[in-house]
Amino acid sequence: MEYYAGIDVGGTKIYAVVINNEGEILGRAKLKTGGDRTFEVVFKRILECYNMACQNSQIEEKQIAAVGLAVPSSVDRLRRVIKHAPNLSWENIKFSEPLKNGFGKPVFVDNDVNMGVFGEYHFGAGKGLKSIYGMFVGTGLGGGYVFDGQIVRGVSYTGGEVGHMIVKIGGPRCNCGNKGCLEAFAAKAGMIKYMKNLVDKRGKKTLLEKLAPNWRTTVGSSALRKAFQKKDKVVMKALKRSANAIGVAAANLISVVGVDAIIIGGGVIEELGDFFMPLIRKSMIKHAFANGAEGVALLESQLGDDAVALGAAWFVRLPEKQNMLFR
Amino acid sequence: MEYYAGIDVGGTKIYAVVINNEGEILGRAKLKTGGDRTFEVVFKRILECYNMACQNSQIEEKQIAAVGLAVPSSVDRLRRVIKHAPNLSWENIKFSEPLKNGFGKPVFVDNDVNMGVFGEYHFGAGKGLKSIYGMFVGTGLGGGYVFDGQIVRGVSYTGGEVGHMIVKIGGPRCNCGNKGCLEAFAAKAGMIKYMKNLVDKRGKKTLLEKLAPNWRTTVGSSALRKAFQKKDKVVMKALKRSANAIGVAAANLISVVGVDAIIIGGGVIEELGDFFMPLIRKSMIKHAFANGAEGVALLESQLGDDAVALGAAWFVRLPEKQNMLFR
Repeated sequence: MEYYAGIDVGGTKIYAVVINNEGEILGRAKLKTGGDRTFEVVFKRILECYNMACQNSQIEEKQIAAVGLAVPSSVDRLRRVIKHAPNLSWENIKFSEPLKNGFGKPVFVDNDVNMGVFGEYHFGAGKGLKSIYGMFVGTGLGGGYVFDGQIVRGVSYTGGEVGHMIVKIGGPRCNCGNKGCLEAFAAKAGMIKYMKNLVDKRGKKTLLEKLAPNWRTTVGSSALRKAFQKKDKVVMKALKRSANAIGVAAANLISVVGVDAIIIGGGVIEELGDFFMPLIRKSMIKHAFANGAEGVALLESQLGDDAVALGAAWFVRLPEKQNMLFR
Repeated sequence: MEYYAGIDVGGTKIYAVVINNEGEILGRAKLKTGGDRTFEVVFKRILECYNMACQNSQIEEKQIAAVGLAVPSSVDRLRRVIKHAPNLSWENIKFSEPLKNGFGKPVFVDNDVNMGVFGEYHFGAGKGLKSIYGMFVGTGLGGGYVFDGQIVRGVSYTGGEVGHMIVKIGGPRCNCGNKGCLEAFAAKAGMIKYMKNLVDKRGKKTLLEKLAPNWRTTVGSSALRKAFQKKDKVVMKALKRSANAIGVAAANLISVVGVDAIIIGGGVIEELGDFFMPLIRKSMIKHAFANGAEGVALLESQLGDDAVALGAAWFVRLPEKQNMLFR
């Protein structure tokens, strides 16, 4: 039996799993990322978390054949560079040497959302399908596209960046600098801007002032849920606008590449899926060309916190991918 | 040596090629589609054109191993139905029996733009690349996506319908019923609506009144070129708006799937490419997320009239596709 590890490196936590070659999770471990975000310090915690996961799985570290590392950044696989991870304040990190020295075995690095969608493709909502597109809605909106078992990345490693699909030329400014990106409508950062405008410029009132006093900077999905349950009009409008835009993006995906399923996940959906998913579906059906939404499944993600780490571990297990490992 | 035929069935002409198993075109034939658009009548002309192409290739018809038929419609390959071809006034045509009786050999039917992009992938601008997206700009805007040798269609056969990607929520009405589709900005039908508004509602003048008196209904790409060369402001504005939207769509494709190359073709580009392509490129670079346009080639299509028929003929040649033929 061979074993593999997958590690999800995020801005708040590091999460590791160990799997066998059937994809069963044998053990997990979780650590806070910590305040010091220099790559060297975080990498020590990554190794620590990895060793904890091995212990929790009752596997000796030397039995691990390969490691998949998922980071919140696009990854230049040829030059072996983590390009830009704002959540970790990492810029152009050359990972080849440290990983080789740290793990002493094959390690593969890729974008976290890609790995999460890959996990859903093999073990979650996308199991058995030919092609899926995942969208994960939180502070930002990340995505990933798997076609026929392959993660589609493109030459500049932007594949999956559906959050920056422009759905309204000349629309609201996105954090990326462009205007009218999906993220500027659908993710929490965009919702906040929109709600600020309703409250500060158009005199609307919101329960968020009490529920989440810092809502103008950051707002938890659970606060949004509470406000929504009390029928807060400002929050309701922002959520409807978000769901409508995600539905437009889903319709666009159907027209552009025509996937079998669109899988929606992330904090906002986990808290508000009951309300969100029917609205997204309605908008998707309305905006899809030539009844294109017929037969396309719109699904919630299934794997929760495991998705990214499991996807990364499974990715390094697949023999035909071994030639892409960074040794 | 084995031989294959490909036939491009359009609203104005039927165009057939015969190739050998290296993809060399041995002969061509062309016929007007004619006024009677019933499937039975057009199908007779398809057979006539096919036999002419065999004669022109000095190949006996019985030496043709399989035929690829490209139609201006989405095609339901499981139910063997040509779904909706407005240029031919065809609706839900069941093609299995007539093709079997007419050709007496394997025939594969698919969307014309898909076949054209497949042709460009193997023999034209996309030769040697992993993934390309083609956009063809004429009265409408059709597209096709080839990833790793496969035409990506999706469960509802809408893959490639980039003309109906919504790039402006709440934007101008498209012929499909939705608002803000790429086609409503970029294709001739959308340009005409925009120019009518400039002339009829905002009092602008255009040389098209002389160059193409029927421009409010239909306008040739050559008339657009002539007006453009005389610096007609109305035409210039419409062309710039079109190129900007195509650039946004190209940037969206880079974010969503990240292709190696985007290939632009069709009547408008053939007439105005010198002017159009730099504008599209500028908009693509400006709107692409995270410098995603770096390394993505923006190319003009190369195969002209041959693209669709050659693509269809080559598609039926590929052995691994034989299981998808309709016998």
